[in-house]
Amino acid sequence: MCGIVGVTGVNNVLPYLLKGLEKLEYRGYDSAGVYVSSDKGGDYLVKEKGRVSALEAKAKKETLIGTAGIAHTRWATHGNVSVANAHPQMSADGRFYLVHNGVIENYLELKKQYLEGVHFESETDTEVAVQLVAKFAKDDNLSGIDAFRKMISLLDGNSAYGFLMMDRREPDVLLTAKKKSPLLIGVSDHGNAVTSDAAAMLDLTQDFIELVDGDVALVKPHEVEIFDESGQKVERKPFHLDIDPADTDKGTYPYYMLKEVDEQAVVARNLSAHYFDEEGNVQGIGCGITDSIKEADRLYIVAAGTSYHAGLVGKRYFEQWAGIPTEVHIASEFAYDQPMLSKKPFFIFLSQSGETADSREVLDNIKRQGFPALTIANVMNSTLTREADFALPVLAGPEIAVASTKAYTAQIIVQAILAYALGDVDLDLKAELAKVAVEISAITDDKDCFKKIADEDLKGQKSAFYIGRGLDAAVALEAALKLKEISYIQTEGFAAGELKHGTISLIEDGTPVFALLTQAKTAGLLRGEVAQVAARGANTIVISSKSLAKEGDAYVLPEVNELLMPLLAVIPAQLIAYYATLARGLDVDRPRNLAKSVTVQ
Amino acid sequence: MCGIVGVTGVNNVLPYLLKGLEKLEYRGYDSAGVYVSSDKGGDYLVKEKGRVSALEAKAKKETLIGTAGIAHTRWATHGNVSVANAHPQMSADGRFYLVHNGVIENYLELKKQYLEGVHFESETDTEVAVQLVAKFAKDDNLSGIDAFRKMISLLDGNSAYGFLMMDRREPDVLLTAKKKSPLLIGVSDHGNAVTSDAAAMLDLTQDFIELVDGDVALVKPHEVEIFDESGQKVERKPFHLDIDPADTDKGTYPYYMLKEVDEQAVVARNLSAHYFDEEGNVQGIGCGITDSIKEADRLYIVAAGTSYHAGLVGKRYFEQWAGIPTEVHIASEFAYDQPMLSKKPFFIFLSQSGETADSREVLDNIKRQGFPALTIANVMNSTLTREADFALPVLAGPEIAVASTKAYTAQIIVQAILAYALGDVDLDLKAELAKVAVEISAITDDKDCFKKIADEDLKGQKSAFYIGRGLDAAVALEAALKLKEISYIQTEGFAAGELKHGTISLIEDGTPVFALLTQAKTAGLLRGEVAQVAARGANTIVISSKSLAKEGDAYVLPEVNELLMPLLAVIPAQLIAYYATLARGLDVDRPRNLAKSVTVQ
Repeated sequence: MCGIVGVTGVNNVLPYLLKGLEKLEYRGYDSAGVYVSSDKGGDYLVKEKGRVSALEAKAKKETLIGTAGIAHTRWATHGNVSVANAHPQMSADGRFYLVHNGVIENYLELKKQYLEGVHFESETDTEVAVQLVAKFAKDDNLSGIDAFRKMISLLDGNSAYGFLMMDRREPDVLLTAKKKSPLLIGVSDHGNAVTSDAAAMLDLTQDFIELVDGDVALVKPHEVEIFDESGQKVERKPFHLDIDPADTDKGTYPYYMLKEVDEQAVVARNLSAHYFDEEGNVQGIGCGITDSIKEADRLYIVAAGTSYHAGLVGKRYFEQWAGIPTEVHIASEFAYDQPMLSKKPFFIFLSQSGETADSREVLDNIKRQGFPALTIANVMNSTLTREADFALPVLAGPEIAVASTKAYTAQIIVQAILAYALGDVDLDLKAELAKVAVEISAITDDKDCFKKIADEDLKGQKSAFYIGRGLDAAVALEAALKLKEISYIQTEGFAAGELKHGTISLIEDGTPVFALLTQAKTAGLLRGEVAQVAARGANTIVISSKSLAKEGDAYVLPEVNELLMPLLAVIPAQLIAYYATLARGLDVDRPRNLAKSVTVQ
Repeated sequence: MCGIVGVTGVNNVLPYLLKGLEKLEYRGYDSAGVYVSSDKGGDYLVKEKGRVSALEAKAKKETLIGTAGIAHTRWATHGNVSVANAHPQMSADGRFYLVHNGVIENYLELKKQYLEGVHFESETDTEVAVQLVAKFAKDDNLSGIDAFRKMISLLDGNSAYGFLMMDRREPDVLLTAKKKSPLLIGVSDHGNAVTSDAAAMLDLTQDFIELVDGDVALVKPHEVEIFDESGQKVERKPFHLDIDPADTDKGTYPYYMLKEVDEQAVVARNLSAHYFDEEGNVQGIGCGITDSIKEADRLYIVAAGTSYHAGLVGKRYFEQWAGIPTEVHIASEFAYDQPMLSKKPFFIFLSQSGETADSREVLDNIKRQGFPALTIANVMNSTLTREADFALPVLAGPEIAVASTKAYTAQIIVQAILAYALGDVDLDLKAELAKVAVEISAITDDKDCFKKIADEDLKGQKSAFYIGRGLDAAVALEAALKLKEISYIQTEGFAAGELKHGTISLIEDGTPVFALLTQAKTAGLLRGEVAQVAARGANTIVISSKSLAKEGDAYVLPEVNELLMPLLAVIPAQLIAYYATLARGLDVDRPRNLAKSVTVQ
């Protein structure tokens, strides 16, 4: 889940590498490092704990102007967060420098078998890999690439990896290899690059070559050579990426998260424009998709984290509007403990990045079983969108804050539109979504109110609860995740009826319990549950929809179609999380320990 | 969810009422109260906050020897925990005394419509009910029973209730009524009784009449008159209950929970003896059950709390051994947001008490839809066992501690046996369960080890995590619930792969993260996740099975069939929860805010 970048053939490589790393920080930011060499001789290795800015301060003291280099931002998997464990990892003889994304499952076995007596600086699996390369180069008298290939051949078959290596003896050549890990080669007239994400290299080029699992490549200043898994030299065509680099700018907002929360109204509007024609008929969903789903007897939504929560809402649309039984599964569980499937399953993958490793594992599995799949993702051209039979964009635009907001609501909207296209519902969804967009704006305009709730009800609190029933229970899970992942207040989301079966014992004087109350048929029961926790001293904060509101409710939501209320109910939770985090003086966009796109399992 | 008891026609009623309340404390113990009258004249009302022992101290100061009385132990739903809100509630004119289980949804409307100007002592819905009775008796000149009936007729149709009332003008008559709330009439030659649970009146009688929803009854010293919903007088036959009152004794154990944890080995053995013949063939499961399930195309397990967690494990048996797709649902959610069902669903209800209101609501719904159902419960003759088409006992014996332990493992075992009976698996389940019983004993013998873990790893902690994959993820949910519900340490159970999608940001230096590691195919991934949280400072405590253990694991479990490992993996979690709670000086058996059997929704 780390970020990798490498450049060769430019005049001064360091700024490219550092800016690239900054763009990759969403993939983890426990530590970072850079190795730079010059085709006129000389090199340096600099590593630092923490954010890229810390590395930058240290690296800028180097006087050598490099022409090639590799760099890495790390999300620790093996070994603590330390300078020694940061990448690039160097072989003991100082010849090879390696950056790596993934986990080498059998690294301890390899270390024991091949590297007895070798001195190790770190606890990483990556150092084992680079020491193996050095050992094979020396003992077997292999070239850099052959030693690199031999190391790869010894990895456990399950290992996913993205490698980028430099050999001191060839200071302008980047060696790279990948399997089940995103890695692109950027090509241009004025230098070539290797990167985990095209966004990190847009300053150099907008043309990229997609590597295939098992590929090994040599990237030189004016040439790229690619060998497939069998060692055969192959040609792979670059594709041109149309991204406006300015899209990723947060403008006048203090944090990306706040910008992205506000953008949700626009995203809803854009989705409406994209997926509906002027008469309100669905467009942009090919009949390949709808026909294939109509042949299915059951839908399986597979996702992780916030996308999983979006799936819990989507299930309702597919069942109620399209009339297709739908299950929602956690990708990391489904991948290794596949439940019994129906006769004709159809899979829907939900992902912001389209790179979620857990979901990719499931996609691989179900493709092998011959089942059809659709990916609904924010980043098109990502692995999940490319490898599924079908893909639909959620058009939320770049989401930079680690805590997902607009991708969540956008995924819900796309699911609603798809279910609507499949069914025959007496509802003008286009008009309803227009209303949703207006009301999202109205809620995001009430920031003062949510700031007040955050300041008053969450001040000094270490734990909190969100409760709801039905669709509100699904939103409660997402609301709780939002609050806990950035403010570090341990928050649990609960189907309100389950609280009394144990967890209610955690309620003490002043415990904040947020209730989401937008579903008419269970409103009375939920009011009862609010009274139950209030009777035990909880500070209850009710967020209700207009027709169900009572005096004393903390916030009253405007009203849209009841099934679409999750799109409104989540907004206060996002903003309460934002302001609670701000009040604690924490970095809203970059919570500790996390990475934006989770590309390890 | 409160406990109700009433007795008439005995020489000294108070000891019966107090002992009865003690047995009912599992239904809630926020406050308690008693109203006693004598057929020779005189009466008193005593109420107190807290446990029954507090009430007892206060009531024993009364000198009147009563011959009839009603009493109540409360689990607060409306209004705070206070003496004023305790039951019995009295009408303003001092004539009627009422105890009540359930929630009157429209009590505010009724108060507004009928009781303008009446002085209220409490915030309870119950006081509204008793004031209504008094008002109708006076204004409409109705008899006690007719006023009682009129009050009931005004309740919101959804209201579940159990009422027990006395009228000062008839000091030896108990008036009672029930709907969707457990209430029994105990009959004997030396006095009659009304009770929420037979166990509370075993000192008086073992013969009980089951009331039907809508019934109203007059219970006199030597006579019982029952009227059905239409007002027609009906005869209902008593049944004889074979319970050994000594069964509920905790013997030399300091707490019931510890006794019940230890009993799990015996329960496993008893279940084996009950459900297998000498050749290892399943017995005691009628072909009515197996035939009905074999006709089904999908199983729906419906449960709440700990039983829901047992269902998550059971799903695996039904899918892997019986080959039937199985879904597990939270009762309180399913009741009001029923998912799309398959063509031929079969329902399995899991419940310790057999009285869980949320599950009863679902059972009512699905019976109306004509679907077959089986209840697997610990208390036979309970509502869920009586109203389902089929019932199987889990034979765990009385479970007194609020935190369920042996009922959980017993429910898992019964599901395993049922799935085994349905399928054709190459496995000697009887022999495997014998091994399970032996190994449970071995683990419960290691108490010192779990006490040490609790003392060292949970001391001063406010939060903790349990993680696992596959079946271990299901057990992690139960393990987390056990720890949090009695120690009040906020503990979350997680499918380990989901942690990195947000919640990992809560991990800080020293956060205890327990990993359950008993499933071979995901052991490597789970080790990776343990390393990930350790790299962020977590104090990782690994509980692994023998063949997957590594140096440094906190506890190594003996090994049985991998699908049965949940029966072993949960034991350390139960004992760690027990000792962590003990170390905090809390009442292990009676955590705050909770009730053993949840008979409100």
